Amino acid sequence: MRNDNWSCTGVRPAGLIIRQKDPNNLEMPFDQLGEFITPTELFYIRSHFPTPELDPVAYRLSIGGAVGKALRLSYAEIRAMPSRTRVATLECAGNGRVFLVPPVPGAQWELGAVGNAEWTGVPLSLLLERAGLADDVCEIVLEGADRGMPKEEPKPPGPISYARSIPRARAMESDVLIAYQMNGRDLTPDHGYPLRAIVPGHYGMASVKWLTNVVATTQPFQGYWQTSDYGYWDDSAGVPVRRPLAEMKLKSQIARPRVYETLEPNRSYCIFGAAWAGDTDVTEISISDDGGASWVQGEFLDPINRHAWRRWKYDWITPTQPGRYTLLARATGADQRTQPDGHDPNFGSYVIDHPLPIEVFVAAL
Amino acid sequence: MRNDNWSCTGVRPAGLIIRQKDPNNLEMPFDQLGEFITPTELFYIRSHFPTPELDPVAYRLSIGGAVGKALRLSYAEIRAMPSRTRVATLECAGNGRVFLVPPVPGAQWELGAVGNAEWTGVPLSLLLERAGLADDVCEIVLEGADRGMPKEEPKPPGPISYARSIPRARAMESDVLIAYQMNGRDLTPDHGYPLRAIVPGHYGMASVKWLTNVVATTQPFQGYWQTSDYGYWDDSAGVPVRRPLAEMKLKSQIARPRVYETLEPNRSYCIFGAAWAGDTDVTEISISDDGGASWVQGEFLDPINRHAWRRWKYDWITPTQPGRYTLLARATGADQRTQPDGHDPNFGSYVIDHPLPIEVFVAAL
Repeated sequence: MRNDNWSCTGVRPAGLIIRQKDPNNLEMPFDQLGEFITPTELFYIRSHFPTPELDPVAYRLSIGGAVGKALRLSYAEIRAMPSRTRVATLECAGNGRVFLVPPVPGAQWELGAVGNAEWTGVPLSLLLERAGLADDVCEIVLEGADRGMPKEEPKPPGPISYARSIPRARAMESDVLIAYQMNGRDLTPDHGYPLRAIVPGHYGMASVKWLTNVVATTQPFQGYWQTSDYGYWDDSAGVPVRRPLAEMKLKSQIARPRVYETLEPNRSYCIFGAAWAGDTDVTEISISDDGGASWVQGEFLDPINRHAWRRWKYDWITPTQPGRYTLLARATGADQRTQPDGHDPNFGSYVIDHPLPIEVFVAAL
Repeated sequence: MRNDNWSCTGVRPAGLIIRQKDPNNLEMPFDQLGEFITPTELFYIRSHFPTPELDPVAYRLSIGGAVGKALRLSYAEIRAMPSRTRVATLECAGNGRVFLVPPVPGAQWELGAVGNAEWTGVPLSLLLERAGLADDVCEIVLEGADRGMPKEEPKPPGPISYARSIPRARAMESDVLIAYQMNGRDLTPDHGYPLRAIVPGHYGMASVKWLTNVVATTQPFQGYWQTSDYGYWDDSAGVPVRRPLAEMKLKSQIARPRVYETLEPNRSYCIFGAAWAGDTDVTEISISDDGGASWVQGEFLDPINRHAWRRWKYDWITPTQPGRYTLLARATGADQRTQPDGHDPNFGSYVIDHPLPIEVFVAAL
């Protein structure tokens, strides 16, 4: 049993937790949260199908559809174009799924299907300007090289690729990248080599890996991954209509202590975690050690940086009374909204954005 | 990226990995393997239903069925009886399930649904002798207080308790305990308070938690957990017949490095793990760093101790060539048998006893 006054930037060997073996779905042990930037070897890996092996020499990125001039760019050509580097947090839309009761199908991510990395690449807008978008283009479809038979109903008649669209206006914003580097090194196969999209602020499904095809469309894209999967029911206008997931909802997570950790009573302990949001800034973080009956304010370790998480901490004194305690963290955004109390079933098996309980034990040695 | 010459008894804060939230199914992060005895706060927790809350004052253990004299013993009476302490490794029959491709239903345990603890309690044989078994008793059914609707087909018509039998001869061996302590402390609710069975050498499903009822039967028990669940197909005699799981099959696991860890090239690294078997002793451990093409011998850190695991290590020099390497461990038993190459589908989603691949990366800093 331990109750270290554990450094808020703990260090230990890397390694991931397997949630599914094939295709590769591995998450970060979230207690390994340390620096602002998540090391590549700790960054979660989410795949729908086997990892494609793409030859950088033969590889071409196609830009087509409703454009003035279709393009086929080589990896070398992309690498030679003006680049940008941006920090962005990616979270899998199913992160936290294991906390849902009753359980729902899908990879049972815990807390670690989220990471914050530095991405380097060519702004998508540069490529779209070069191709010349038709006036009535409304969306940009991003398609990867990975393919197979998906699992959610309604299923397509045969194997399909992974493809997903973003609105034109979002695609033209300069922070949307066609990235070839992650944390200063070329993408690894698991992380999308040779190129992937990075759509800051959106759940990870938008940031298509092994990108091979960019298609400008004049109709909203109704592909499988936009409708059957990665969608939700919007019932704000009476009749529920199907919408695709997009921006990450405001969320916070406790990295340390971890679930079922045993701590000594009446000792100093640094509760540590991160908070993020896709469409607002995180401005407050509150922590509870009594299952939400009372809350205190934590402090941030990182400044506001849209699309990147803010790590936070709270210097706790563990209870004197032995027993079981439920820790919670709850973030508030610049728009004054806070995390909901529970999971909204309209989101199906996605968007688990309520404060996630971390039960710990306090026991004398 | 790290490549510590990591102590073979690494220490870090405790905490478990959630595989299912409700009912409680949490596993040890197996890289936390340290001492011979698994600390209670690291020991995996496997439940089928919500954890019963039993009042130690009102609690009674019933011994009945085909006995001369049925008994109802209080917790205090059990505690006052002659006790024994035994070390036994328990492994969940579904440990390693996440490694199966394609995936199968059930909690996706990785490596940590196994632990080795010291159990203290009354030998079951003492209670059965006191009750007096009829001559034709063939099995002893152990029933717990947890109940609910199980998941596997064929399902019973309504909620049932967790109940499982062991053969009479096994039940009468003095190492089978009605335990009230784990590692020198009273059982916690998660681990079966106030009493649980401990059947050394059997998969964990035999070691019934929250034990309330012991029933001597003259017919083989055909309960749900003996047939629909925790069973396998035995096709050794031509026609496959259904049999219940019992002894743990020979198995070894690598605790360190962990999956997807990144190591420096040409450095000293202590590969560390454990091996066990229910019906033989583990006599050899072999390790491969090339996916099974070649093997070297490891050394054991623990002596042979039937029903307890043997930790082992191998002093590896990491490859010079950067890349991805697959580590495997394979145990051999005193009966000269070794682990199989792959999973036997007759075992369904259980008994994942082949060498489990640990992929690591070697990369220069």
